[in-house]
Amino acid sequence: MPKVVDHGERRSHIAQAMWRVIARDGLAAASARTVAAEGGWSLGAVRHYFASQDELLLFATTAMVEGVTARIRTVLTERRPGPARCQAVVEHLLPLDDERTGEVRVWLAVLIRAHVDSTFDELRIAGWHGTRQICRLVVTELAGQSPPSDLTLPLPRRFEPHAASLHAWLDGLTLHAATVPELLPPDEVRREVRGQLRRLRAAVSA
Amino acid sequence: MPKVVDHGERRSHIAQAMWRVIARDGLAAASARTVAAEGGWSLGAVRHYFASQDELLLFATTAMVEGVTARIRTVLTERRPGPARCQAVVEHLLPLDDERTGEVRVWLAVLIRAHVDSTFDELRIAGWHGTRQICRLVVTELAGQSPPSDLTLPLPRRFEPHAASLHAWLDGLTLHAATVPELLPPDEVRREVRGQLRRLRAAVSA
Repeated sequence: MPKVVDHGERRSHIAQAMWRVIARDGLAAASARTVAAEGGWSLGAVRHYFASQDELLLFATTAMVEGVTARIRTVLTERRPGPARCQAVVEHLLPLDDERTGEVRVWLAVLIRAHVDSTFDELRIAGWHGTRQICRLVVTELAGQSPPSDLTLPLPRRFEPHAASLHAWLDGLTLHAATVPELLPPDEVRREVRGQLRRLRAAVSA
Repeated sequence: MPKVVDHGERRSHIAQAMWRVIARDGLAAASARTVAAEGGWSLGAVRHYFASQDELLLFATTAMVEGVTARIRTVLTERRPGPARCQAVVEHLLPLDDERTGEVRVWLAVLIRAHVDSTFDELRIAGWHGTRQICRLVVTELAGQSPPSDLTLPLPRRFEPHAASLHAWLDGLTLHAATVPELLPPDEVRREVRGQLRRLRAAVSA
C-alpha cells in the first residue's frame, strides 16, 4: 500500500518542532534545517511544506494562538464560580509550565521580530485584540454581569478602563514571569493573579 | 600633533550606533560590521573596543540603562507636585519618542536574547529591580509619604502589592506601546498613565 501522509498533521508537527526549537534556543536558531533535525525529517520535507522561515513561523504562531484560544474556550464552558473561572482563564495566558513558557517565548520573539518585519502585523494586532477581549470577559464576570454579546467593542465607560488596565498588567506579568522566572516562580505568579483579581473585583463591584 | 582618541567617548559612540541599528533593523542585524558602517568606522576600530557582539551589546545596554536612570534622577530633584512628578518619572520609561522607542526595543531584544544567553543575567535582574524601586518611589509619593531610605527593601504590606501591581502594569504598557504603536500612540499612552496614577493614588490614600 502506498504511504499516506496527512498533510495537515505533518504541517502541525513541523510547527510544534519549531516552537520547541524557539523555546529552547531562541528564534535566531529556528531555521528549516534545525526544525527538520528536531523532528527527524529531511530538510526537503520541511521545505516542501514551508518555503521560508517566515512562512513556517507565521503558521506555527497562528496555530499556537488558536491552541491557547481553544483552551480558554473550554474553561469558559465549565461551571465554576466566577472568580475561580477568571483565575483559570488568566492562568492559560501565563508561562506557568513548560508548554506555556514555550508559547510565551515564541510570542515575545515574534513581537520583537515584527518590529522589523511586517509579515507578522496581522497576527500582532489580532493577539492584542484577543487578550483585550479576554480581559473584558474577566471584568464583566467579576462585576457579576453577563458578558456583552460583542467583546470587540469597548465595555461601558465604568468598566473599560479596568479591562485596559488588566490587559497591560497581565502582559507585564507575563513578560516578568518569562524573563525573570527566578524572581517570579509559578506559585508567586498565581498569588499575584489572585491578588490582582481580588482588587479588581472590589473595584468593579463598588 | 598625534591624534588623541578619547577611548571612553569612542566606546560610547559605538554603543549609540549599535542602539540605532537594533532599533531600526533588529538585534539580529547588529553585527560589528553593521555597527561600524552605521558610525562610519572601520570594522577593525569596532573590534578593537569590543571583541564580540555580546560584549558590545552588554556595554551598550548597560550604558542605556545608566542614561535612563540619570534622566529619572534629574526628574526626582525637580520641585513639582507629587502626581506630576510621578507622571514624568513613569514617562521616562515609556517609548514616547524615537529615543525612548529605541531604548525599549533594545531592552526587549536583550530580554529575549537572555532566554538563551546567560551573559545578560545580571543586567536582566538589575533592570527588574530598578523598575521595582521606581514603582516603590511612585507609590510612596502618591500616598503622600516620604520615600523609605532603602528602596531595595519591600514597602510596608499596605503598599508593596501596589508597587508590584504598578510594576507589571507599567512593563505591560511599555510592551504594548512598543509592539502595537498603531493602537497606542503616545497621547493615548500618556492618558493611560494619568488614569492609572489617579486610580493608584485613590487606592493608596484611602
